[in-house]
Amino acid sequence: MDRKALDRAFNPRCVAVVGDKMATGYVWLRNMSTFTGKLYSVQIDPSELPGIEKLGIKNYRSLLDIPEAIDYVLVAVPRGVAPRIIADCIEKRVGGVSLFTSGFAETHSEEGSALQETLVQMALAAKLNLIGPNCMGVFNPKLGVRQDVNQYHGRSGPVGFISQSGTHAIFFSQVGARHGLLISKSVSYGNGAVLDSADYLDYLSEDDDTKVIGLYVEGVKDGRRFLNSLRQATRRKPVLVWKGGRGEEGNRAISSHTASLASNPLLWDSLIKQCGAMNIDNLDEMIDCMKVILYVNPPQGKRVALVAQSGGQSVVIADAFTRVGLTAPLLSPSSYQQFAGFFNIIGGTYLNPLDTSWHAPSIKDSVRILDIVSTDANIDSVVAELSLPFLSQIWDFYPPYLDDLVAALADFKARCSKAFVVVISAGQLEEEGLSLRGKLAERGIASFPSFDRAARALAKVAHYRQSHLA
Amino acid sequence: MDRKALDRAFNPRCVAVVGDKMATGYVWLRNMSTFTGKLYSVQIDPSELPGIEKLGIKNYRSLLDIPEAIDYVLVAVPRGVAPRIIADCIEKRVGGVSLFTSGFAETHSEEGSALQETLVQMALAAKLNLIGPNCMGVFNPKLGVRQDVNQYHGRSGPVGFISQSGTHAIFFSQVGARHGLLISKSVSYGNGAVLDSADYLDYLSEDDDTKVIGLYVEGVKDGRRFLNSLRQATRRKPVLVWKGGRGEEGNRAISSHTASLASNPLLWDSLIKQCGAMNIDNLDEMIDCMKVILYVNPPQGKRVALVAQSGGQSVVIADAFTRVGLTAPLLSPSSYQQFAGFFNIIGGTYLNPLDTSWHAPSIKDSVRILDIVSTDANIDSVVAELSLPFLSQIWDFYPPYLDDLVAALADFKARCSKAFVVVISAGQLEEEGLSLRGKLAERGIASFPSFDRAARALAKVAHYRQSHLA
Repeated sequence: MDRKALDRAFNPRCVAVVGDKMATGYVWLRNMSTFTGKLYSVQIDPSELPGIEKLGIKNYRSLLDIPEAIDYVLVAVPRGVAPRIIADCIEKRVGGVSLFTSGFAETHSEEGSALQETLVQMALAAKLNLIGPNCMGVFNPKLGVRQDVNQYHGRSGPVGFISQSGTHAIFFSQVGARHGLLISKSVSYGNGAVLDSADYLDYLSEDDDTKVIGLYVEGVKDGRRFLNSLRQATRRKPVLVWKGGRGEEGNRAISSHTASLASNPLLWDSLIKQCGAMNIDNLDEMIDCMKVILYVNPPQGKRVALVAQSGGQSVVIADAFTRVGLTAPLLSPSSYQQFAGFFNIIGGTYLNPLDTSWHAPSIKDSVRILDIVSTDANIDSVVAELSLPFLSQIWDFYPPYLDDLVAALADFKARCSKAFVVVISAGQLEEEGLSLRGKLAERGIASFPSFDRAARALAKVAHYRQSHLA
Repeated sequence: MDRKALDRAFNPRCVAVVGDKMATGYVWLRNMSTFTGKLYSVQIDPSELPGIEKLGIKNYRSLLDIPEAIDYVLVAVPRGVAPRIIADCIEKRVGGVSLFTSGFAETHSEEGSALQETLVQMALAAKLNLIGPNCMGVFNPKLGVRQDVNQYHGRSGPVGFISQSGTHAIFFSQVGARHGLLISKSVSYGNGAVLDSADYLDYLSEDDDTKVIGLYVEGVKDGRRFLNSLRQATRRKPVLVWKGGRGEEGNRAISSHTASLASNPLLWDSLIKQCGAMNIDNLDEMIDCMKVILYVNPPQGKRVALVAQSGGQSVVIADAFTRVGLTAPLLSPSSYQQFAGFFNIIGGTYLNPLDTSWHAPSIKDSVRILDIVSTDANIDSVVAELSLPFLSQIWDFYPPYLDDLVAALADFKARCSKAFVVVISAGQLEEEGLSLRGKLAERGIASFPSFDRAARALAKVAHYRQSHLA
């Protein structure tokens, strides 16, 4: 990997799309329509030229004709044409090239495998940063370099994402954005024929904009090198590894998806853990754990204060958090003395778990409860339930209620030195739950849609930090 | 339990609310405002009478003054007044009475416990069906008898729900409705001082409108009787048991919530299973398993056909379903022969898992794929992914697309003799995902928001049916 050149590909000033066409709705030129730098098309078919012109994009018949340096190239030509384009990329000394083109090793055909081998030898000999083939390439939201026309642009965040699958790269960016997780740089790398996960780990672990790395991987070409890069990366920032293809059926799928080879899942998990990375099972867990890593103070132990808004929820919040190995101990006497002064809600109780009762206390008293438990010496983490069916009875009368509550929770979070997470019990108000999650995320507060998801993520990250520091 | 009288309480023609007041916004009279029969108020405080009159509800100073038979009474008086009201209920020979009033055994005070004991002795001596205390009582949506002002009314379904917690009774009814699970009858029974879970199990197991029973329980007074009733009930219909209060912390919470005693969770789970019921861990699992029980043909084995809409999803759908012990075997040669005739989607594969590619095939071809896999002798269950980020690119151009797709899936389901579930991969389109789930539920199609939730529910119900039939 030529790091300096790859840096050009991830942060391009000039991009070329090769081979886009009307039949696919000029999807790549539209993906790149938000690019803040200079965008060119390369297409030799005269029948495609009016459509490209209509998009306002200058077309050339060859990469070599473009009168300036090209940092990143996205290639969507038929596979037989790919070697000629790669030769042009080499001659043009581009920063990097993504081959959207598929039909290579993943087809398990002699022709496809031979073609891929040709590309690999060309790229290696010329030290060309070849991404893919069979991939969606680079996503740099700040610069508007995209993998999909529905991805955001003009804003960015601390999350680096490396994905062997285009779907998972795109889904993660889009679902993550709904949870307040924005991308610094992401790459979908498909067959990983030249640059593999290890290269992208090396690159993102030294990228200052990236504070945490997520990886969706189906297989690695060089296991020793991968583990070495992973070990280096986890010394600098947390890395979450989601391995696709764990049994016979999943392996059948990875073989036809990215031509990846099967690996023993238990051995894999154990090696990942030894390298200081987190094993992740699915998209939800990737999102949940990243939220805890980025937006929750590291818990210093297993002791949680659980603040529910009804008796029934106080029972099952305790079950959820203790099931994953956390504890909800009694608070210090001084906390109970403070509660006795104002916590006289009928039906409520304040041992731990706390039940503030569905006659929700005022925002002031709610935050006072959080301040007391969060400064208690017996407590490492604070979990607060927001029960929308109950709270809606307040906001029906006083519409600004939720905004006031979110502002008060943000103030609380700013002075809280412990881990703090919110669980939104949306009940039937699912849309309102999504909206509240967005409001909380804007203020840097991690929220979860169920006690169990919050508990699993908090416990997993707490356990990870403990074993990682040990 | 007097079954005939309890039947009057669950299906009342005449309801009385005792002790409702302005300070709580006449919450109980408003809950009952949808009741289709005759509703009376009983209140002696003259300052409350104008408010009650304003609601258009006739008030009496005593239950005994009401000039007709009362089937169901909801009592919201201070605890000290409760014995006098119960005496009136006995004299009036009401069908049943729910005590919303709290402050009894769950306070662990001498006064509260003694008062509860007084009520218990009165009720037992008179064979009065006393529900609670410390509960939200009966929900009969068809008749508009409600526990909460935001519960639905005028429609009903096949789900009976018995809950020691008012919150869980109300939440389940409201969340369930969003998933197409409607209530036949539900009861929140709090401390269960007289009638306990065993009584409600006996009642609902013989209720023809109830096809499946969910139970949220914190503790039982008479373990032997409970297990006996549970065993009887599971002979007639599936029963799902969610036990709240599993560890030290949860037990602390149930003690102050409903005065329930701790039990050994592993022993509990094993006894529940021996009685032929399903152990459930949380609300989501209750909802998911009920959907499979009610709306999915019983799978005859562990073999699933997995139809995903991209390569990346074909990998992780396989991981999710095999992780829970199901298998995704290769299909029969005849299925592959049929696929070869029309399944030529670039990038797609049709081993198993299938990847129909994100160039989504036409609705006709999509359903053709489902017909082929569902009639394959190697397959017991069919799982179809609907990936909204991809499908939205179709409905952007052709808005009726989703409705057409739902109609075609409903037709498919009608002729499909295997288990069939849908997974909605909503991506960033979460609100659209909720809406699609509703459309599918209206047609009796069970959908899930992730592969993992679908897999766990399908595996759990398949396993349950297998061991239950064995």
